[in-house]
Amino acid sequence: MRALVYHGPDNKTWEEVPDPQLQDDTDAIVRVDAVTICGTDLHILKGDVPAVTDGRILGHEAVGTVQSVGSGVKNVKVGDKVLVSCVTACGTCEYCRQGSYGQCLGGGGWILGHLIDGTQAELVRVPFADTSTYPAPAGVPDEELLMLADILPTGFEVGVLNGGVKPGDVVAVVGAGPIGLAAIMGARLFSPSHVVAIDKADSRLEAAKHFGADVVVNPDREDPLEVVRGLTGGLGAHVAMEAVGYPETFELAARLVRPCGRVANIGVHAEPATLHLEELWTRNVTITTGLVDTSSTPTLLSLVQTSAMAPGRFVTHTFRFDQFLEAYDVFSRAAETGALKVVLTP
Amino acid sequence: MRALVYHGPDNKTWEEVPDPQLQDDTDAIVRVDAVTICGTDLHILKGDVPAVTDGRILGHEAVGTVQSVGSGVKNVKVGDKVLVSCVTACGTCEYCRQGSYGQCLGGGGWILGHLIDGTQAELVRVPFADTSTYPAPAGVPDEELLMLADILPTGFEVGVLNGGVKPGDVVAVVGAGPIGLAAIMGARLFSPSHVVAIDKADSRLEAAKHFGADVVVNPDREDPLEVVRGLTGGLGAHVAMEAVGYPETFELAARLVRPCGRVANIGVHAEPATLHLEELWTRNVTITTGLVDTSSTPTLLSLVQTSAMAPGRFVTHTFRFDQFLEAYDVFSRAAETGALKVVLTP
Amino acid sequence: MRALVYHGPDNKTWEEVPDPQLQDDTDAIVRVDAVTICGTDLHILKGDVPAVTDGRILGHEAVGTVQSVGSGVKNVKVGDKVLVSCVTACGTCEYCRQGSYGQCLGGGGWILGHLIDGTQAELVRVPFADTSTYPAPAGVPDEELLMLADILPTGFEVGVLNGGVKPGDVVAVVGAGPIGLAAIMGARLFSPSHVVAIDKADSRLEAAKHFGADVVVNPDREDPLEVVRGLTGGLGAHVAMEAVGYPETFELAARLVRPCGRVANIGVHAEPATLHLEELWTRNVTITTGLVDTSSTPTLLSLVQTSAMAPGRFVTHTFRFDQFLEAYDVFSRAAETGALKVVLTP
Amino acid sequence: MRALVYHGPDNKTWEEVPDPQLQDDTDAIVRVDAVTICGTDLHILKGDVPAVTDGRILGHEAVGTVQSVGSGVKNVKVGDKVLVSCVTACGTCEYCRQGSYGQCLGGGGWILGHLIDGTQAELVRVPFADTSTYPAPAGVPDEELLMLADILPTGFEVGVLNGGVKPGDVVAVVGAGPIGLAAIMGARLFSPSHVVAIDKADSRLEAAKHFGADVVVNPDREDPLEVVRGLTGGLGAHVAMEAVGYPETFELAARLVRPCGRVANIGVHAEPATLHLEELWTRNVTITTGLVDTSSTPTLLSLVQTSAMAPGRFVTHTFRFDQFLEAYDVFSRAAETGALKVVLTP
Repeated sequence: MRALVYHGPDNKTWEEVPDPQLQDDTDAIVRVDAVTICGTDLHILKGDVPAVTDGRILGHEAVGTVQSVGSGVKNVKVGDKVLVSCVTACGTCEYCRQGSYGQCLGGGGWILGHLIDGTQAELVRVPFADTSTYPAPAGVPDEELLMLADILPTGFEVGVLNGGVKPGDVVAVVGAGPIGLAAIMGARLFSPSHVVAIDKADSRLEAAKHFGADVVVNPDREDPLEVVRGLTGGLGAHVAMEAVGYPETFELAARLVRPCGRVANIGVHAEPATLHLEELWTRNVTITTGLVDTSSTPTLLSLVQTSAMAPGRFVTHTFRFDQFLEAYDVFSRAAETGALKVVLTP
Repeated sequence: MRALVYHGPDNKTWEEVPDPQLQDDTDAIVRVDAVTICGTDLHILKGDVPAVTDGRILGHEAVGTVQSVGSGVKNVKVGDKVLVSCVTACGTCEYCRQGSYGQCLGGGGWILGHLIDGTQAELVRVPFADTSTYPAPAGVPDEELLMLADILPTGFEVGVLNGGVKPGDVVAVVGAGPIGLAAIMGARLFSPSHVVAIDKADSRLEAAKHFGADVVVNPDREDPLEVVRGLTGGLGAHVAMEAVGYPETFELAARLVRPCGRVANIGVHAEPATLHLEELWTRNVTITTGLVDTSSTPTLLSLVQTSAMAPGRFVTHTFRFDQFLEAYDVFSRAAETGALKVVLTP
Repeated sequence: MRALVYHGPDNKTWEEVPDPQLQDDTDAIVRVDAVTICGTDLHILKGDVPAVTDGRILGHEAVGTVQSVGSGVKNVKVGDKVLVSCVTACGTCEYCRQGSYGQCLGGGGWILGHLIDGTQAELVRVPFADTSTYPAPAGVPDEELLMLADILPTGFEVGVLNGGVKPGDVVAVVGAGPIGLAAIMGARLFSPSHVVAIDKADSRLEAAKHFGADVVVNPDREDPLEVVRGLTGGLGAHVAMEAVGYPETFELAARLVRPCGRVANIGVHAEPATLHLEELWTRNVTITTGLVDTSSTPTLLSLVQTSAMAPGRFVTHTFRFDQFLEAYDVFSRAAETGALKVVLTP
Repeated sequence: MRALVYHGPDNKTWEEVPDPQLQDDTDAIVRVDAVTICGTDLHILKGDVPAVTDGRILGHEAVGTVQSVGSGVKNVKVGDKVLVSCVTACGTCEYCRQGSYGQCLGGGGWILGHLIDGTQAELVRVPFADTSTYPAPAGVPDEELLMLADILPTGFEVGVLNGGVKPGDVVAVVGAGPIGLAAIMGARLFSPSHVVAIDKADSRLEAAKHFGADVVVNPDREDPLEVVRGLTGGLGAHVAMEAVGYPETFELAARLVRPCGRVANIGVHAEPATLHLEELWTRNVTITTGLVDTSSTPTLLSLVQTSAMAPGRFVTHTFRFDQFLEAYDVFSRAAETGALKVVLTP
C-alpha cells in the first residue's frame, strides 16, 4: 500500500510500504476512506516529538471500512464503516474504566501515528478495535464524521467540559485556530451569553464569528482584558480557554478569568509557563489540562446526526491521496491558504 | 480598650485605643473572649501586606460575646456567644449568594485586621454580623471553637474540598505547619487510604502523625516522589496539597500528582511559580487556588459538636491578653517552641 | 389602591383596598408595572390551597418600580425598576445560604399571594427586598422580564437543572402547558439531540414546536413509550419531566426514562402517585421534586439580555388592570383561548 | 463437581453436576475458595425470581482461583486468586463505558446464579473475566475479600454514593440487616455527624452500633421521625436510606428526609410504594434507586487493604461446602441465629 512516512525532521514521503497485518486478536485492519492532518503532525515534522522515529506512518484520525479483524474483536465486523478515534483504549485498565482513555495504561492512549503506524495510509492497523472505533451513523458524510476523530472531542472535552461552561457564562477563547474554533463550537452547546475569540489573525477572527463567537478581539488593536471586563462588570470571564500553546497565551487566559472562574488549557505546550500564584492564590481559580479522551464521541455523534453540530464547516480543502504532500503544504501555510482542516480521500 | 496595634514593619504594641463604635446598622460590637494569631499576621508584620497600614488593629479570628448590635441586625442578639469568622460576608452580592464569601463584592471578604480593625483587642466591630458570625454551639470550649474562625475551614475548603478527596485516595500534603495539619485533619473526614505529610522539620512530621498522616517524608532524607509513587503503583497521588507558599513546594505538589489528579494550593504566595505545561498538558490535572470562604463553618461546627473533629489539639499555648507580645514571640518561633496555635484570653 | 382579592373558593374581586405599608426595615413597597396570572392562582381559586384565606390579595409575579424602602434595605433604591421574584429569601438562613430560597426558614419562600398579600395590585409590599428583587436590565421590556418571576426559573431549575439535561440527551416532557413549554425552552439551552413533547391537546403540541420540541406526541393517537424508545434504541429518555401534576402523568414520566436516567417532577400535585419500585429498584433512576428557588434568575437575566432566550413568546394576551376578571377568564379557558401567559399593566 | 442447585420453589440440593466449560474466549473457569449466600438467594428459593429456572446453580459472590481462561482473556491468568464480582461487565457497551456495569447491554449485569450458573459450586464459569473479576490484594483473607463481591459495594454505591453522604450529615438508615449495616459502614467513610439505624429487631440495632450507628431506634418503641427531627432542629435527615424492601419502609425513608435531602433506595422491592407527591413536590427531594455496578470495587479494595474498612465483622458463621444446606438454614433464620453473612469454603 502507499502511506505518508516520516523520515526525520522536515522529511516525509508518500511511498509504497508493506500492508499492515493483524498482530493481536483485538486488532482490526481498516481501509482508510478519509483522513486529515493535525497540527500535531506539523509538530512531529519539525522534530518536536522525539518519540516519533524514522519510518513511522503519520496520522491519528480516519474514517474507514473494516477489512479484517482479530479473533477477539466482538463488536466490529468486516465491512463496517467506522470512525477511527485518535485515542486508542484498552478498555480494561484503571483509567479506561473511568473513561480516561487518553491515560490508558494498557497499551492505548495516543499511539496512532506516534508510537505505532498511523492513518495517513491506504490501510491502518487499529489496536483494541472494539473500544477504539465507533460505527458510522447513517447519513453522516465521511468528511464530517472525520472531524470527530480528534478536533471536536478535543475542543469539547478539554475546553468546554473541563472549563465547565454553563448557560449565561462569558467564555473567552485565546486562539482561533482549528482547535479554538472547535472549542467555540462546543461552548455554544451550553448557551453562554458571550463567546469572545482572541487572535492576532483577522482571518481567524472572521472564522470565529462563523463558529459561534459573538465578540472578537485582535490583541494588536485592543486589550482583551478590557474587552472581557467590559462585558462582565469588571469581573472577568467565567471560563477562559487556552488554544494556542505558548506561555504568554496561557498567562493571558489566567488573567482573563474572574474569581471562582476556570482556565482550561487545550494548547500543546513545549515550554513551561509562569503561574502568578502571588495573585491567583486568593482568587479561587481552577486550572485544567488535558489530552483528549474521546469519551464524548457517542454524544458528539448524536449531535452531528441531529444537526445540532455542523462539523462540515471545518473542511476547507479536499485532496486525493496522491496529493498528500500538497495537502500538507496547504495546511502548513494556513495563514495564507485559510486552511482549517484538509481532508484526503483515496 | 486595649488592642494589638500594627505600627509598620516589625513594630507592634499592646496599647490603649478608643473603643470601636457601631458604624452601619448591620454591625455588631463583640467583646473578645478568645483570639489567636495567624501566620498571615506574621506576614503583615514583615511588611508583606502593604494594604495594612500604621495604626491598624490586627487579628481576624475570635470567639466573643455580643455587646451591641445595629438596628439592622436580625439574628444576633446582645449576650450571644459567637464565632467571629475570618471572612466577612455582605450576604447579598453575586459571590455571597453562591457561598463564595471570600470574594464578597459588597464590602466583605478578608477585611478584619487587614482593611479594618481586627480581633486582637478587647472589643471588635464586626460588619454584616448576621452573615459573618455563627452562634457558639453548647458545650464547645472557646479555644476549640476558635479554630473554626480560619484554620479549619481553610484546610477543609481550600485543601480538602477543592482537592476533591475521596475514600481510598492517596493524599500528599506538602507542608505540615498548622494549615497543612488542618488539611490533614480535614482529609481524614473522607477516609483516604493514605495521607502522606511532607516537611523538612521532623517535629512537624511528628505532629502530622497525630493529625492523621500515616506516612511522613522528610525530603532532606527521602524523595517524596519515590515514596508517593511507591504507594500508588507508580502513578502518583490522587490529590496533592500545597500548604507552604513557595514556588518549589507548589512545583513539588504538581509533580506528586497522578494523571487526572488534583493539586490544591492552600499556601500564601508572594512570588510566581513555574507551571510545567510542557509535561502537564497531557496529564489531565486540575489545579485550584483559593482564599477560604468559611461557607463550611456550619458543617465543621456540627463535626466538632459530635466530636468527629477534635480541634483542641491545635492549641499548644495559652496566654492572657497582657502577654500578647510574648504570644507573638512564641508563635513566630514555632520551630523551637513547637507552637501550632496560641490562644489568648482576657 | 385597587387589587385582586380572594374571597373564598370561586370568589374574587378587583376592589379598593388600603395601600400596603412598610412593616419591616428590609421591606420595599413596589408600584406594579406588569403582573401575570399563574396556574397556581387557579388552584387557589378552586379552594385547593387552604393556607390562602378570605381577603388575601393574589399574585406572586411582578415587574415594578420601587416606591419606598425600609431603613435596612441596602441595594434597592426608590425609583429602581425591579423584577419581583415569586420566591422571597431572607438571605441568612441555612437554606438561603445554599441558594435554596424556596425552602427559606427565615420567613421567606413562596409567601406572596399565599401567606401575605401579593402582586395582583397597584402596589405590593416585598419583604427582604435586597434578596427578593432583581434590578431590571436595560432594554428588556417589562412583559419579557415578567416571565422571569416564576415560569422561566421553574422550568429551568426544577425541570432542566434537576433533570441534569446534557448535550445529546433525549428529553421527554409530559405536559406542554406554560410550565412544560418553559422546561422545553430551558432544555434547549443544553443542546439535547431530541426534545419530545407529550400532551393530549394538539394546540399545545403546536406551541411546543415553537418552543423547541422537535418531536410531539398526542397519547390519544400514539404511544409515547414507543416513540421515545424508537428514538433511543429502545432504552428510553435520558431525562423525563412531569409538567402536569397528576399521578398518571408522573407514572408515565417514570416509564419513559432509561436506566440511569432522571425524572424531574415540576407539576403541582394534589394526590400521591404510585412508584413502581418493583421495576425501578434495578434501574438506577433518579427522581427529583422541587419548588423553584429562583436562584437561577441572574443567569436567566443574562440570557434574555443577550437574546439567547426569548420569553416574549409566552405572552399571548395583554390586559389593563381594570380588565383583571376578564384576564382570569381568558387564562382559565386556555384550551379554547390559546392563552399561555396573560400580562396586565396599569 | 458438586454444586447447590435450584429445583423450583423451596427445593435445592447440594449435588453432583458436570464441570463448567469455557464457552466464550473471554470466559474464565474459577475454582471457588469461598462463597456466601445473599438475601436474594432466599428470594429466589421462594420462587420470587421467575427468571431463575429448575437446574440453575445459585450464588453470585465468590473468591476463587483461576483454573483456565479463554484465548481472549488478557489480564487474568491461571493460578490468579480473584474476587468474582456479583455483576458481570462486557466492558464495551454504552453502560459499561460509563461504569454502569449493572445495566450492561452486552450480556453482563447480574447474571451469575440468575441467568447462568453461579458461584455456589466447586467451579464457576465467569464470562468477561477481564472486567468481571479483580485480583485479590496481598494480605486480605478470603472471607473479608468475599464481602466485596456484593454487599459492600451495594451499600456504598446504592446507599452512600447515591445518597450523597457528606461530612456533618445526619444519615438515617431504615433496616439494619446485612445491607443496612453495609450502608452504615460505608456512610462512616464520609464522617456524618450522626448515623441513625432504624429496625424492629433489637439484635440488629445492637449490631448497627458496632457497624457505626450512633443512634438506634426501634419503631415499636420510639417514633423515628421524632428522633431524627430531634437531632436536626426539626428539619429531618440529610440522607435517608431504605434497606428493607417494603412499601412502608420506603415511605418512612421519604418522610424522614429534610427539604433538599436525598432518599436512596437499596432494598429489593416486590411491590410498588406510594409516593406522596402532594407533600414532596415542594420539598426538593431526590430519590434514587439502583442495582449495584461494583464500579467502586477498586476503591473498596484499597480501603480494606489499609484497614479503613473491616469487612470481617460481617462474617458470623463459617461452613464447609458439604454443609451448604445447613448454611442456608442458619442464614434464613437470621433473627434467631444472629447470622449476618455466612461463608462456605471447600
